[in-house]
Amino acid sequence: MNGTASRADERLVHVPLGERAYDILIGPGMIARAGGEITARLKGRRAAIVTDEHVEPLYLAQLMDSLQTDGIEAVSLTLPAGEKTKSMDGLAAVTDMMLAARIERGDAVIALGGGVIGDLAGFAAGIVRRGVRFIQIPTTLLAQVDSSVGGKTGINTRHGKNLLGVFHQPDLVLADTAALDSLSPREFRAGYAEVVKYGLIDKPTFFHWLEKNWTKVLEGGPERIEAIAISCQAKADVVVEDERETGRRALLNLGHTFGHALEAATDFDSSRLVHGEGVAIGMVLAHRFSARLNLASPDDAQRVAAHLSAVGLPTKIADIEGSLPPTQMLMDAIAQDKKVKSGKLTFILTRGIGQSFVADDVPASEVLRFLEEMR
Amino acid sequence: MNGTASRADERLVHVPLGERAYDILIGPGMIARAGGEITARLKGRRAAIVTDEHVEPLYLAQLMDSLQTDGIEAVSLTLPAGEKTKSMDGLAAVTDMMLAARIERGDAVIALGGGVIGDLAGFAAGIVRRGVRFIQIPTTLLAQVDSSVGGKTGINTRHGKNLLGVFHQPDLVLADTAALDSLSPREFRAGYAEVVKYGLIDKPTFFHWLEKNWTKVLEGGPERIEAIAISCQAKADVVVEDERETGRRALLNLGHTFGHALEAATDFDSSRLVHGEGVAIGMVLAHRFSARLNLASPDDAQRVAAHLSAVGLPTKIADIEGSLPPTQMLMDAIAQDKKVKSGKLTFILTRGIGQSFVADDVPASEVLRFLEEMR
Repeated sequence: MNGTASRADERLVHVPLGERAYDILIGPGMIARAGGEITARLKGRRAAIVTDEHVEPLYLAQLMDSLQTDGIEAVSLTLPAGEKTKSMDGLAAVTDMMLAARIERGDAVIALGGGVIGDLAGFAAGIVRRGVRFIQIPTTLLAQVDSSVGGKTGINTRHGKNLLGVFHQPDLVLADTAALDSLSPREFRAGYAEVVKYGLIDKPTFFHWLEKNWTKVLEGGPERIEAIAISCQAKADVVVEDERETGRRALLNLGHTFGHALEAATDFDSSRLVHGEGVAIGMVLAHRFSARLNLASPDDAQRVAAHLSAVGLPTKIADIEGSLPPTQMLMDAIAQDKKVKSGKLTFILTRGIGQSFVADDVPASEVLRFLEEMR
Repeated sequence: MNGTASRADERLVHVPLGERAYDILIGPGMIARAGGEITARLKGRRAAIVTDEHVEPLYLAQLMDSLQTDGIEAVSLTLPAGEKTKSMDGLAAVTDMMLAARIERGDAVIALGGGVIGDLAGFAAGIVRRGVRFIQIPTTLLAQVDSSVGGKTGINTRHGKNLLGVFHQPDLVLADTAALDSLSPREFRAGYAEVVKYGLIDKPTFFHWLEKNWTKVLEGGPERIEAIAISCQAKADVVVEDERETGRRALLNLGHTFGHALEAATDFDSSRLVHGEGVAIGMVLAHRFSARLNLASPDDAQRVAAHLSAVGLPTKIADIEGSLPPTQMLMDAIAQDKKVKSGKLTFILTRGIGQSFVADDVPASEVLRFLEEMR
């Protein structure tokens, strides 16, 4: 296909980042076409695939076949599924595999999986030989609409999430929408939270469309592909404006500061809370906090909560099962979060649906009091 | 002083890399002035100093005093001296220290030491929060004329040297030439090999100047500062032309492919061979190999060997004490070196003194035969 999305059920989003420009191909059957799409774009003929134990049995053989057909020699590494794989040990394992396979600068690392695999493999691609090529094949909705696009990579440390990483743009993103059929409803909904986020940042019309069409997006079909393409385009637009997050890109963190703190509070235990669920609660909290600061109407927060709740997502702290640490510990997690400048807290707040903005001087005392009320 | 080298015994080299531009200040007393030079350039008021057990007792207190005087809150981490510190464990230790100290994007990591500390601290600065500010205070001649300039950072792995790293330019380099007085003659000579390298790459006049003035460079005084400034300017010129080593920058590897292989062959044991000594032997080998390929006159190789030998540097493989592994193992180290493209060996060869060039299709069989002759 050579980089063109020529079928009616396919979409192509181009990310125009100069010499780091790349395509996102969205549609069913992309994994089976990976070899051709990669050889059309890269000179190297070796690849190191990183995947996890859940995704491997579903798609690895298909991907290896496609690569082999197009003359790419590939090795693979299967890691445990879950957030804890995004660690210094995981990074050492991936980079060691790449070096043993003699992956050179023109060769590729392929991330086959969700956001954890993409973030980890992308970080490894960014540091082996100070940077090799990188292909994202996201198999979750969350990864397709968010983490696979934009070049942020990273791992977690005992101090917090994503505190180590690099900016390393992919050379190609293949979003195989057929792969989403294997997701559990819970996983799909978690990704859907990030789709909603794009509406809430600056696309009120898209949010309205989602309120009407969400059941079709969940069921599959053209509305799903449309929602993914709009989301990828929205993310690409922000990334092109501010690749290294010195300003506007921070808007993509809507719901994430609260969300990350809640993930930390549940020790990144995905049986209790997955990232998208943290973001769902975080977005509602961001809207409620904005209302509390008299920036937005409480009705907007209610409307966001109503939509996420209808979809089946958690919308308040009490929706998280099990006990949580004291509020002050949530605050510590927020302060350690990387969106901090000279001690002041940076938050994404809103003036209403689709009217988010970056506030970089939110007093910690206000946040603490608000969180105590919300528990 | 606010970034100006106003005294007669100081030099300023500017590296014009657009938004990544920075100054190199060269002269005595720079450590004592660090606080003022840093606050003149950076907004952040926190710093994490990385040093080693040899440098700490000599300069850490002086640096901390200077930072404190100018209102910078600093923490420090002292690591074992030597190449083995450039490891995944070393990286984890530095990044953990930085995160514990809540170093933010506008704050700085300060590398106080030689190339090992600079490469390691720079890598950490490049990945914590996807990049924080970075100050180089090189205390060895090698680091002042080579590793502290240009943004290459990295660590070693069991597969070879510097195979993991990022490009992360410093925001300021303070080359305190008084610090060089504490170097052993062996350490100073090792750094001198890199000074000679700039002459051999493309500055025959500088090489001639060194042949005449090398005793004064070793003794100290204005010739030493001059040699360092010319070297920094030479490196800056190459880096500005090719920041990410896609072409011309590879010239800086003159002598390094052979040199790295010899370092690997001695298991990076600095009692047997330090980096600059490997480069000295490597440069002579590169000239001899070029003569062997009928590219240059054997007289040039002899002249390079004569100068390095006069200075007290090793110039042939037999100068390394102890036994070395079979030649095939040297070849394996060369093949794993990152200057490899699609299986062909890339070497820096020369047509004579100051006439180096990048050759990217050197047959491995020729290299193997040559190395066997040279043992």
